[in-house]
Amino acid sequence: MPKIPRSPALDYTRDTSEKRRQFIENETNASLTHSSHFSLEPESLAGNIENFTGVAQVPIGFAGPMLVNGEAAQGEFYVPMATTEGTLVASYSRGMRLTREAGGIKTTVIDDAMQRAPMFAFADAREALAFGKWIEANFDQIKVASEETTSVGKLRDIEQYAVSKLRWLRFNFTCGDAAGQNMVSKATKAGCDWVLDNYPGNVDHFVLAANLDTDKKHSHLNSLHTRGKRVVAEITLPKQLMTDIMHCPPEALFKQRQYSNMGALMAGSVNNGAHFANGITAVFIACGQDVANVAESSAGFTYAEILPNGDYYFSVTIPSLIVATYGGGTGLATQQECLNVLGCAGKGKVNKLAEIIAATVLCGDLSLGSAVVANEWVSSHEKLGRNR
Amino acid sequence: MPKIPRSPALDYTRDTSEKRRQFIENETNASLTHSSHFSLEPESLAGNIENFTGVAQVPIGFAGPMLVNGEAAQGEFYVPMATTEGTLVASYSRGMRLTREAGGIKTTVIDDAMQRAPMFAFADAREALAFGKWIEANFDQIKVASEETTSVGKLRDIEQYAVSKLRWLRFNFTCGDAAGQNMVSKATKAGCDWVLDNYPGNVDHFVLAANLDTDKKHSHLNSLHTRGKRVVAEITLPKQLMTDIMHCPPEALFKQRQYSNMGALMAGSVNNGAHFANGITAVFIACGQDVANVAESSAGFTYAEILPNGDYYFSVTIPSLIVATYGGGTGLATQQECLNVLGCAGKGKVNKLAEIIAATVLCGDLSLGSAVVANEWVSSHEKLGRNR
Amino acid sequence: MPKIPRSPALDYTRDTSEKRRQFIENETNASLTHSSHFSLEPESLAGNIENFTGVAQVPIGFAGPMLVNGEAAQGEFYVPMATTEGTLVASYSRGMRLTREAGGIKTTVIDDAMQRAPMFAFADAREALAFGKWIEANFDQIKVASEETTSVGKLRDIEQYAVSKLRWLRFNFTCGDAAGQNMVSKATKAGCDWVLDNYPGNVDHFVLAANLDTDKKHSHLNSLHTRGKRVVAEITLPKQLMTDIMHCPPEALFKQRQYSNMGALMAGSVNNGAHFANGITAVFIACGQDVANVAESSAGFTYAEILPNGDYYFSVTIPSLIVATYGGGTGLATQQECLNVLGCAGKGKVNKLAEIIAATVLCGDLSLGSAVVANEWVSSHEKLGRNR
Amino acid sequence: MPKIPRSPALDYTRDTSEKRRQFIENETNASLTHSSHFSLEPESLAGNIENFTGVAQVPIGFAGPMLVNGEAAQGEFYVPMATTEGTLVASYSRGMRLTREAGGIKTTVIDDAMQRAPMFAFADAREALAFGKWIEANFDQIKVASEETTSVGKLRDIEQYAVSKLRWLRFNFTCGDAAGQNMVSKATKAGCDWVLDNYPGNVDHFVLAANLDTDKKHSHLNSLHTRGKRVVAEITLPKQLMTDIMHCPPEALFKQRQYSNMGALMAGSVNNGAHFANGITAVFIACGQDVANVAESSAGFTYAEILPNGDYYFSVTIPSLIVATYGGGTGLATQQECLNVLGCAGKGKVNKLAEIIAATVLCGDLSLGSAVVANEWVSSHEKLGRNR
Repeated sequence: MPKIPRSPALDYTRDTSEKRRQFIENETNASLTHSSHFSLEPESLAGNIENFTGVAQVPIGFAGPMLVNGEAAQGEFYVPMATTEGTLVASYSRGMRLTREAGGIKTTVIDDAMQRAPMFAFADAREALAFGKWIEANFDQIKVASEETTSVGKLRDIEQYAVSKLRWLRFNFTCGDAAGQNMVSKATKAGCDWVLDNYPGNVDHFVLAANLDTDKKHSHLNSLHTRGKRVVAEITLPKQLMTDIMHCPPEALFKQRQYSNMGALMAGSVNNGAHFANGITAVFIACGQDVANVAESSAGFTYAEILPNGDYYFSVTIPSLIVATYGGGTGLATQQECLNVLGCAGKGKVNKLAEIIAATVLCGDLSLGSAVVANEWVSSHEKLGRNR
Repeated sequence: MPKIPRSPALDYTRDTSEKRRQFIENETNASLTHSSHFSLEPESLAGNIENFTGVAQVPIGFAGPMLVNGEAAQGEFYVPMATTEGTLVASYSRGMRLTREAGGIKTTVIDDAMQRAPMFAFADAREALAFGKWIEANFDQIKVASEETTSVGKLRDIEQYAVSKLRWLRFNFTCGDAAGQNMVSKATKAGCDWVLDNYPGNVDHFVLAANLDTDKKHSHLNSLHTRGKRVVAEITLPKQLMTDIMHCPPEALFKQRQYSNMGALMAGSVNNGAHFANGITAVFIACGQDVANVAESSAGFTYAEILPNGDYYFSVTIPSLIVATYGGGTGLATQQECLNVLGCAGKGKVNKLAEIIAATVLCGDLSLGSAVVANEWVSSHEKLGRNR
Repeated sequence: MPKIPRSPALDYTRDTSEKRRQFIENETNASLTHSSHFSLEPESLAGNIENFTGVAQVPIGFAGPMLVNGEAAQGEFYVPMATTEGTLVASYSRGMRLTREAGGIKTTVIDDAMQRAPMFAFADAREALAFGKWIEANFDQIKVASEETTSVGKLRDIEQYAVSKLRWLRFNFTCGDAAGQNMVSKATKAGCDWVLDNYPGNVDHFVLAANLDTDKKHSHLNSLHTRGKRVVAEITLPKQLMTDIMHCPPEALFKQRQYSNMGALMAGSVNNGAHFANGITAVFIACGQDVANVAESSAGFTYAEILPNGDYYFSVTIPSLIVATYGGGTGLATQQECLNVLGCAGKGKVNKLAEIIAATVLCGDLSLGSAVVANEWVSSHEKLGRNR
Repeated sequence: MPKIPRSPALDYTRDTSEKRRQFIENETNASLTHSSHFSLEPESLAGNIENFTGVAQVPIGFAGPMLVNGEAAQGEFYVPMATTEGTLVASYSRGMRLTREAGGIKTTVIDDAMQRAPMFAFADAREALAFGKWIEANFDQIKVASEETTSVGKLRDIEQYAVSKLRWLRFNFTCGDAAGQNMVSKATKAGCDWVLDNYPGNVDHFVLAANLDTDKKHSHLNSLHTRGKRVVAEITLPKQLMTDIMHCPPEALFKQRQYSNMGALMAGSVNNGAHFANGITAVFIACGQDVANVAESSAGFTYAEILPNGDYYFSVTIPSLIVATYGGGTGLATQQECLNVLGCAGKGKVNKLAEIIAATVLCGDLSLGSAVVANEWVSSHEKLGRNR
């Protein structure tokens, strides 16, 4: 089978994409008619993809308006959701109606760190320990070396994790409005180069990453110590409102929460909530985020209380929400448009986007949770979804 | 802020989508020009989305050819990847080149189950235990009741998980070529209705789901007992080939594997591999899969050996790969085209798609793993990616 | 430094123990006067220890009476607790008083399985899968072969866990009144010998254990699928009683439970309760159990509810309680006495012992939980414990 | 059933213990003859137990000599092991012989922290965040307030963990030669009292512990961040020696390690080693440690390499080893004697004890691992153990 011809991976023109399309069609007898129908400028894709051939058209529906009383996000928002799962937009919209009538969702970014965790191996644990102390003592210089590679990234601190004769350094950076994975890889490498040049002892082995970051996969460590933004969305729902709109009094939802907490604990789940991933993924696709980060960003915690007056306090905490309003896919044609709808394009907007996503997640979990309790869940899928 | 006007959520016409577009533009002062540029038929979207307004154009590049010696997938494939992360397509292609020269990737679907896990509460643990025994004794009738709701789904078995006076029943179905979440919700509900009608004892509380499924979030339980397909991709790489193509001898990659295994164990990661999520997400978007399932499908296991002759055995196991070739978003315009490129559209193709994705994941992990070891990782991102 | 002289490890006489004592004293200048003061018969120790030299005198206090309404344990019990942690016996006694006044603790053994999990490696995943199917088809013969080695153990089922080209078989046995680890090792080996003799395909590698059992360490798998006994202890506490005896109304304890559930989930704890390990360990030492199994037996789940009438439902579930009333250390001098106090020595008593331990754990968790809430915790340690 | 009569729990005389013995004998018709045979002074037990009635006689065997090249432990040691599990002392001794001939075990305490983690709840996440910043800013004063309660404990740092409107502060102390749980409870309470008196904002709820410590149960958090001592024991074993003594070449043991790592990862085990718990428990009982801490101390990591010359590097890391040489049960009669045998009684010895235990664990894991590989495991249990 031939290689994709006449196609330097980095040639971003409509003409080249057309030749690639024809090649694929010839080789596979499949048509790429729709995939070749796009309005974006291929030239805009340098740095986003190789072998560009066409586009996936993923349908977008808007949910909302959603009322947010955040630190960065304030006001009402129509949330763009790119999905092919029936019921999803309707369900999130239902949660947005409820929370809007309850006065809106409070959102707060409570932590912020992107990391790379290089590993150093030594002759024995004692040398690894000595190295660890040297790193602590030389943090300021490592910080200088790391930050020379970036105008935006700031090295916040270096955590250390030790086993046997191995030591991982977890470099935590803030990255402005970028997601920052590449930025911190480069900066951490520069910091490590300085370490390797200056450490007076012997390092047996060094590698820039060995699964303690952890990147593109959930880890308990990330849920504890944040990867990207740690965001909380919370609301107090009047008892009557829940009954009126969700057909589900607080006591019923709270009882279900007890069962769900126990189910999650037994299952060893990374999330005791309902379906964070649905809302996060739909907004990620619409808004040009790195969708593979759903692996990490879908983890989280739900915490609820019945207040003394019978109202329902409900919150979601997303400990590893990786978002950007600059760089990556955020500048592409439709993606930029969706960010603009949210007022989240460009610099200084990343916490706003994080808060909007957390608020969206809260709406979706309230809606699905209530539907499960009110026994309306399967029937709404029968009405709105494909029944497969 | 007004509600989205004149827009019954389920009105799927170009005209209605246009009105919704104008509404959003008016309310937000953002343009949706590109998002409104699409070739799919809005009428085709019933069951996939509500409030349809436009599309996200997500760039697609093809990687390959990739040579697969699977049970269901055999031959060479050009793999459609929808992504905005620079280097991704190039990196996976590099792995495909290596594995092709090594004779291709062996793939096998080793388990298959989609589930819903209803919970039943009782007066005490003793009654819950009695109920569990009754369920075992009445499995055949529960199976009949469940399967009446579906022409495709088959109830394979019911696992039981018990704590306190609560008992979860994990209904495991096979679902043909559909992903099956809705199918099994409906079928499980029918099975539970039969149980509730016929169980002679008292059930204090019943709910169709309480986080032991677990849906749209990773759980250790799913990694142990499969959700969707459990697929293995494996290959033996000649020593010389690895050095020639990847600049990375087996010993170096194996050493890195040791560090990565330890890093994953310490971090409490759900995956000891490199970046399963990248390949899975890119194919999921291109091929109309439910992308939110990346939350579960990105978990997995990597296992490697240096063989006596110095060659490198490498494998990836994806325990919860949720895929479909029928239903969901698989029939949409560009999504169907990409499935056709792989020869995976329609019935009888789901294991083929699962194997292709697993093979893709293997290529990506080999490529990134080698790059990290050969210290080419940051530099390739500098060359191909946006440096943020 | 010389080896322990004149001491074939298996010579169990008072004289030999005395020579060993003198040897240790000579070599280390430490006295073993107290350690050499014992009433047990050295001859009784064959099979329990090598190099027998003396004893640890671990103080025993009795807690209770504790009222149990179990399936196997019924009536009031004085519970022997061997410990050096001040406050422990007093605290458990307080919980026993509370639960006795509330009408006693309901206990139920809801599952029972001891296991060994051999691993088989193959040329590839496909061969591993074929092997798995063959095992299912030949279960009856494997069962016969396994059970030939034991008059007590019964092979209940074989779970299978697969990754890459590897397949673990988790042999689940019931073991009568023995803990059964050695019994199932032997029986599993016999079963595997039969498999290796009769399997028509090729097995690349076999090993009797590779950490999926898991033995002498907690695993999530064991919490899901039981190791030893899975026992539930539960009680409904009248609201007034809690306030009177524990100075802690149900609402306050339930609120604390919410925080503790969230804390346990965040910490990645194997137990969302308070201190199962304290009670289990103290009874294990007193009653001749294999105390190292505290590693597994200390995991568990706490589940509580406030009932409509304001009473408090409280339960503990111990999923991996490994106990014996026969074999191991159960027949030694003081250990047999303590089992006799509980009416648990010898055959047919193992579920009774399991239930008594679960009830004890419940009492301890109620007592500590209440003390934390009533802010009496630190002060009671100041009164009864050593303040270190 | 009557309460234990004439027995104020805190009356520590031989006479009172005798009366309690008679009471239990009368009530249960069991004999406590052996349990009442002891040489310790009841008066010495104040602070260690309530309702003192007698002792468990747990047999002690000595393993060794074990050669340790630690920072705190140097030289050869006879290790007291109190156990009733046949084969255990013999197996550890075998590992000690191997490691002694290999030149001894290198041990290092690489971290040290005992903690209590109080929880504070607020009106919302934003207030919780503000509180967190205030705590950071006022660390010095909190440290002063905490340390006023103890002459030994030093507040090292306060970690913060946040979810929803809740914030846990994890107070990390060093505690000299004590285990320190009570010490840090008291000191943390004093620190929190200062906080509650001085924090200008509103705290909705405070509790001294809510399962994030985590005490008497394993948590992933403790494995990451240490509870008690974090100790590494490591050794390089010449290839020939392994074959000669263990009948197990490095390659075979390393292969088994690969399987065991994968098994542990799949099982969700808290330890990828063999049986840390056995050695730890036996030394804990002999040496007067709080044996319930086996729940936490049994977790750990094993890391191994085959070196370029074919030798075997092997290490164990115990991240939560909770030990004391002062306070608790360390001063009791036989317990003090065993600590004296190790030269570990009293102040300034705690790291020495931690290192000896880690070295012991390493010997046991080498021995069992080799036995499993050399297929000598079941047969040695048949020879030395009770076959139950």
